Amino acid sequence: MLIRIDHVGIACHDLDEKVAFYESLFDLTVTSREVNEEQGVREAMLHVADGPGGSSWIQLVQPLAGDTPVGRFLARRGEGIHHIGYGVNDLTQALASIGASGVRLLDQRPRHGSMGASIAFIHPADLGGVLTELVETAQGSLGWADREAPRLTGMG
Amino acid sequence: MLIRIDHVGIACHDLDEKVAFYESLFDLTVTSREVNEEQGVREAMLHVADGPGGSSWIQLVQPLAGDTPVGRFLARRGEGIHHIGYGVNDLTQALASIGASGVRLLDQRPRHGSMGASIAFIHPADLGGVLTELVETAQGSLGWADREAPRLTGMG
Repeated sequence: MLIRIDHVGIACHDLDEKVAFYESLFDLTVTSREVNEEQGVREAMLHVADGPGGSSWIQLVQPLAGDTPVGRFLARRGEGIHHIGYGVNDLTQALASIGASGVRLLDQRPRHGSMGASIAFIHPADLGGVLTELVETAQGSLGWADREAPRLTGMG
Repeated sequence: MLIRIDHVGIACHDLDEKVAFYESLFDLTVTSREVNEEQGVREAMLHVADGPGGSSWIQLVQPLAGDTPVGRFLARRGEGIHHIGYGVNDLTQALASIGASGVRLLDQRPRHGSMGASIAFIHPADLGGVLTELVETAQGSLGWADREAPRLTGMG
């Protein structure tokens, strides 16, 4: 089901500062910056590697306000790893399989993530405290534009 | 410097239970199981993907006792993502570069990690709360067996 580690999502207080730090320390490059109003974050994707299953990224996210999921995460735990995202070939099929196992989905159907991807989150309480995201890239077969009116809703 | 996301390290209370769960839910296979007495963990590596920069894994770790780094992590935060590991081609060179930047290294020189890899940890306080591991696979150029007497010390 999983074809790559798509990204690790890291919550921070100051996106620009952290992006500059990661770029300098690890010689990485930002491929995409987005503001996601629904999730209440600013984010940047730093490219790590490419592979047959797709690319891998470090995703840095900064909350737009304290009263957001990432804002509450920072208040509770401080800066650190917020979630992990795995690549899948067919997100709809993956959600059906996981949902059928009894594991709770935070997203019953794909929504929009970073760089045009379709994404969905699995409930961390059913995955040993790990907020887990599944990602089908925009180049994949999902065609989310056919499913619903496009809107920028994802955090992944 | 980084050539892949090597693994995400997930701390859990019951390794066997969590391995079976991950295998079933995501159709993954365990490639390696090890006990690391120095780090005080039992661990399992679940294979996710292969790529030109090497393979990616989910690493599940269970503390052997409460008075260990992972045991204290579980007591403080509960189960969840413990660290992230990135692949590098030359760990010694990477450590020199990162150390020269002023970022503190938890390991000044490579030590032994999972599956024969050479690994080193970077101080999380200097990386925005993210415990970060660098991994050079056993197939790499480091040749750690020439550096010091072999001993199983790594957690990665």
